[in-house]
Amino acid sequence: MITNLKEIQSDNAKGMKRSVIRELLKLTTQPGLISFAGGLPSPATFPTDKLKLVVDEVLDTDCKAALQYGSTEGVIRLRELILENYLEQGLDINIHNISITTASQQGLDLLAKIFINPGDNVLVGLPSYLGGLSAFKSYGGVPIGIEFDEHGMRSDILEETLEKMKKDGKMPKFIYVIPDFQNPAGITMPEFRRIEILELAKKYDVLVVEDSPYREIRFEGEDQKMLYALDNTGHVIVLGTFSKIFVPGFRIGWIIADEAIVDLFVKAKQAVDLCTSPFVQKIAAKYIDAGYYGENLLRTIALYKEKKEMMMKAFEEFMPEGVTWTNPEGGLFLFVVLPENMDAETLFPKAIEAKVAYVIGTAFYCNGEGKNTMRINFSYPSKDQIVEGVKRLATVIRNEMK
Amino acid sequence: MITNLKEIQSDNAKGMKRSVIRELLKLTTQPGLISFAGGLPSPATFPTDKLKLVVDEVLDTDCKAALQYGSTEGVIRLRELILENYLEQGLDINIHNISITTASQQGLDLLAKIFINPGDNVLVGLPSYLGGLSAFKSYGGVPIGIEFDEHGMRSDILEETLEKMKKDGKMPKFIYVIPDFQNPAGITMPEFRRIEILELAKKYDVLVVEDSPYREIRFEGEDQKMLYALDNTGHVIVLGTFSKIFVPGFRIGWIIADEAIVDLFVKAKQAVDLCTSPFVQKIAAKYIDAGYYGENLLRTIALYKEKKEMMMKAFEEFMPEGVTWTNPEGGLFLFVVLPENMDAETLFPKAIEAKVAYVIGTAFYCNGEGKNTMRINFSYPSKDQIVEGVKRLATVIRNEMK
Repeated sequence: MITNLKEIQSDNAKGMKRSVIRELLKLTTQPGLISFAGGLPSPATFPTDKLKLVVDEVLDTDCKAALQYGSTEGVIRLRELILENYLEQGLDINIHNISITTASQQGLDLLAKIFINPGDNVLVGLPSYLGGLSAFKSYGGVPIGIEFDEHGMRSDILEETLEKMKKDGKMPKFIYVIPDFQNPAGITMPEFRRIEILELAKKYDVLVVEDSPYREIRFEGEDQKMLYALDNTGHVIVLGTFSKIFVPGFRIGWIIADEAIVDLFVKAKQAVDLCTSPFVQKIAAKYIDAGYYGENLLRTIALYKEKKEMMMKAFEEFMPEGVTWTNPEGGLFLFVVLPENMDAETLFPKAIEAKVAYVIGTAFYCNGEGKNTMRINFSYPSKDQIVEGVKRLATVIRNEMK
Repeated sequence: MITNLKEIQSDNAKGMKRSVIRELLKLTTQPGLISFAGGLPSPATFPTDKLKLVVDEVLDTDCKAALQYGSTEGVIRLRELILENYLEQGLDINIHNISITTASQQGLDLLAKIFINPGDNVLVGLPSYLGGLSAFKSYGGVPIGIEFDEHGMRSDILEETLEKMKKDGKMPKFIYVIPDFQNPAGITMPEFRRIEILELAKKYDVLVVEDSPYREIRFEGEDQKMLYALDNTGHVIVLGTFSKIFVPGFRIGWIIADEAIVDLFVKAKQAVDLCTSPFVQKIAAKYIDAGYYGENLLRTIALYKEKKEMMMKAFEEFMPEGVTWTNPEGGLFLFVVLPENMDAETLFPKAIEAKVAYVIGTAFYCNGEGKNTMRINFSYPSKDQIVEGVKRLATVIRNEMK
């Protein structure tokens, strides 16, 4: 072995840790354990039979292009179909505003690569998506957390922070938000909050990253306009993905942004993986063109709605007093707040012993807070597991309270 | 639009350029143009019918895992099959020395992410693979070129350079080589040169990156042992890929290294794209398990051998005196050297006018040399195109000589 492996690593690599969630997920493979920890879609939502038809058609009619290298921007037909969806949502864009990524995590990686110098700040939610935080930190980015209220990121604190940063002459590179069914908090920003944040972005001339992996999975309540649709000044970058609404194993995502920003993503992606698999892109495009996408999405929403309601009922039935939780209008997660003196991290081994798992909330707090919180997933466990798992978790919490 | 997009980019992004090759490839789509510019496999080598069988089987028997998120390290069965291939080649490794990447370009990106701080040096060939250079530069790496002789990277200059760097107290992060059918030079390192380079790597305690995308495509001559097989000190990192020998559109590659280094790749990949598509990985594993891989590879080798020989013949027949070229024992490329006073870049528009394209050699020289060189691909053009394209290219060169 090379003798100085520790020293020759880049400064950014020295700070890299294995993802808490992905390492936790390894623990959760033991038999009998009910995991609320991952963010996996239910395999029941995978449209296997339809995919067989579609894959055969791609191989029959388009195999030369599907199996060859593709363009960095992505398969044109897929970009057109993604465009149609966003045009319906009121975004003022064309195909040149869309570029395909190797799922949303690559969108986050490229975003960081393009904008972050070591030591640069980015503004994120308290809490915020762990994969975003990891991507930003992997380029030496330093996230600054903005507190939440029941409407998501607080615009008053955001303004104070931006004002202070402006005075200090060190502006953040962007504001990172997940407006719909936020991961992990399960909160959806109402339109007035979106507008407040956009106004601040414009006032301080800062980009807003609208990470939008769950938007299509709404169980109830009213659609809130996308920040990109509310903006007409080119301050918003959208990150989208098929991972929660179609097939995570295809690894297909996209970014939507001003053309000059899309150009930066394309240049960065060329050095990163040349192109996203045209094979899976063509399958996805053909699948949507065949009209299968909408019906499967409706089935997915119905299933997750049922699971969420079941989980709400179980929480109400079994959780001891002093524990609170969000009731998300969509998405895959709810967020649990334990009494202030409790610590979800020290509770974790006891939960594993009781054969139930979750993600400790501190993983989502860039400032180390959130000790008494946990993220709970309801898309992956079966309905029986939801009831039994909440029972187990409630027992573990009740025992700890004593 | 945000007003200060130029200023807020990271230092590395400011230096990023669109890939010369990928931009050239756009020019080469005009009708009637014969392109020797890309590095595309021939679509005739894509095993479409066999893939249909295999994909159906994956969806029938393993769809839940194939369509779900997968582990960052990759699908175990695929890693086992890759392991078998390298065990046969004398590498002393186990499955923990192998991790899947989203094709080889991601291997290069992760390598740079893990080891390169802005300003760090890496040693590369003169010439060397453009995608490697872009990946290293995209993290602020500064490549230092080592001259070639007919056996590839010169070990005497490598030693001088390492000695000087040691004295200056600024060692390179790694030595980047493509020992088999080098891109773009078409040269294969004989074993003695591989051993010389390894000895230097050990003496100066520097990593060697053995980029190995073409090794399986040998038309003639003797296999040379891999550097990894000749080393027993953990100084070598291998980058492999299916892109040239199976299906580029699947975007599957791998790294082979000491476990401690594999661990760094896995951590880095978690922030970059979580995992490579398990769907395409499972298709690849099933395809190999079904015994289709070897026969298709033989077919591929036979086709490329025929094309290379046809190209050699055409070069001999049509090229004017003063032009020389390599005769590769395998791979996809040959390298052409024009008379010293000629410039392949100023020649390029004339070639496009004559409806033939190549890659200008300077793209592969980190020191700006190579003005009178060009890279020629023979895997993608048809046999007729090879003859006609060389004719056109020879005419353009002959006219320029006058």
